[in-house]
Amino acid sequence: MAATKAGKILITEAKRGLGLEMIKQLSENSCPNQHIFAACRDPDVPNSESKELARKHPSVITIIRLDADDPSSVKDFAKKVGSLLGNNGLNQLVNNADRKRKLIEIESIVKSFKATNCNLPEYLPYLQMAAKASGTPGMSSNKAAVMKIFSVVGSISTMPSIYEQFPTLPYGASKAGCNMLTVLAAEEFKADEILCMTLHPGWVKTELGGVKSNTALESMEGMLRVIDSLTEKQHAVLQTTCKLIL
Amino acid sequence: MAATKAGKILITEAKRGLGLEMIKQLSENSCPNQHIFAACRDPDVPNSESKELARKHPSVITIIRLDADDPSSVKDFAKKVGSLLGNNGLNQLVNNADRKRKLIEIESIVKSFKATNCNLPEYLPYLQMAAKASGTPGMSSNKAAVMKIFSVVGSISTMPSIYEQFPTLPYGASKAGCNMLTVLAAEEFKADEILCMTLHPGWVKTELGGVKSNTALESMEGMLRVIDSLTEKQHAVLQTTCKLIL
Repeated sequence: MAATKAGKILITEAKRGLGLEMIKQLSENSCPNQHIFAACRDPDVPNSESKELARKHPSVITIIRLDADDPSSVKDFAKKVGSLLGNNGLNQLVNNADRKRKLIEIESIVKSFKATNCNLPEYLPYLQMAAKASGTPGMSSNKAAVMKIFSVVGSISTMPSIYEQFPTLPYGASKAGCNMLTVLAAEEFKADEILCMTLHPGWVKTELGGVKSNTALESMEGMLRVIDSLTEKQHAVLQTTCKLIL
Repeated sequence: MAATKAGKILITEAKRGLGLEMIKQLSENSCPNQHIFAACRDPDVPNSESKELARKHPSVITIIRLDADDPSSVKDFAKKVGSLLGNNGLNQLVNNADRKRKLIEIESIVKSFKATNCNLPEYLPYLQMAAKASGTPGMSSNKAAVMKIFSVVGSISTMPSIYEQFPTLPYGASKAGCNMLTVLAAEEFKADEILCMTLHPGWVKTELGGVKSNTALESMEGMLRVIDSLTEKQHAVLQTTCKLIL
């Protein structure tokens, strides 16, 4: 089980797949003063694994409802996390979201994009606060970082050749937009020393599929190891590799 | 002045810049049975050049109101164009839109994306109709085509290095999404023989800027020449070059 030394961590879509695996591994290996804010669309579903984890580690995990499609939910969520964060701000924002839709619907692309990115503007002040409070120069994931999960589906050079296998047009278009957002946010927040990058989890077996793949556990162990060692060298990098099977 | 042989053409954002130049050149050189549907956000602005053109060439241009941010306007627009199109469908959809916003606002990215893409799903049936009605094999812009205007702002490899000059994060993210949409739509509509591609107009001097640049007239002359010669060779191509100054 892997760990990270970052203090305050916000993880979106923590109900399943990699998001769930991340809160699982972090909570079972948490540092003092560490706290995880886990965003879930429907936290009150019975027998949810994330809820069970929060019950087991109440001082480490807080689950908060977030419906990324609903602007008032986005605002409420930001307000709640803001009120729970101390004066040292937010150290890590992990944007994790998965969508799979086939049809060309502009609204599907928009929803997918919002689900992956809705937190960035709301959390900038907290990330800037954490960067200032750290008192150390340079960039690191334990100071202030925005991390997204890379997907080959967002790669414009690869996606056409695998489209028959992965006919996920809206998700692909939104992921390409996310990639651009990451590299431009890296430009925009360089001066604030907020690390912006994308992690490649490898092929992961989640409920969304994956054939030749790592388990979510293996992938997340690799990711958390990499996360903990990030510096400005990985700033603006889109495919920071975490695991063997890519 | 350049011309195209396509019958029914739909152009978005036809009020200014390249969209305006396109309806100007096409209307002054129109073929028999050609008709241009020009989408404008606010067609009733006094002294609008596009309105003046429509007055001068009433049998060639129809200006129709389209507010891409408003779903009911998008529906009304599609309904109106649908009722005006004959049984031969729509031959060319030219998606032309420009936005310039600096701040990271997810809503700005979403608006920019919708402005550039809102027509695609609504017009697919008409494009498919035109492709079937043509009776000729292969792809061409006179048969059925979706064309977008390329911008370097959507290129993930170039944009970080020019971000200080063009700090247009939302537009960049939405344009990257558009590029992916074009290459995946090309996969999706290959079987229908609908040409999907992006035209590079070169540096163009519009009200949005451009220093070392072609005039809109020069750029559009080049573009219309290229448009008329498009075949399946340009299908899925993102930077079909139209002018000298790139």
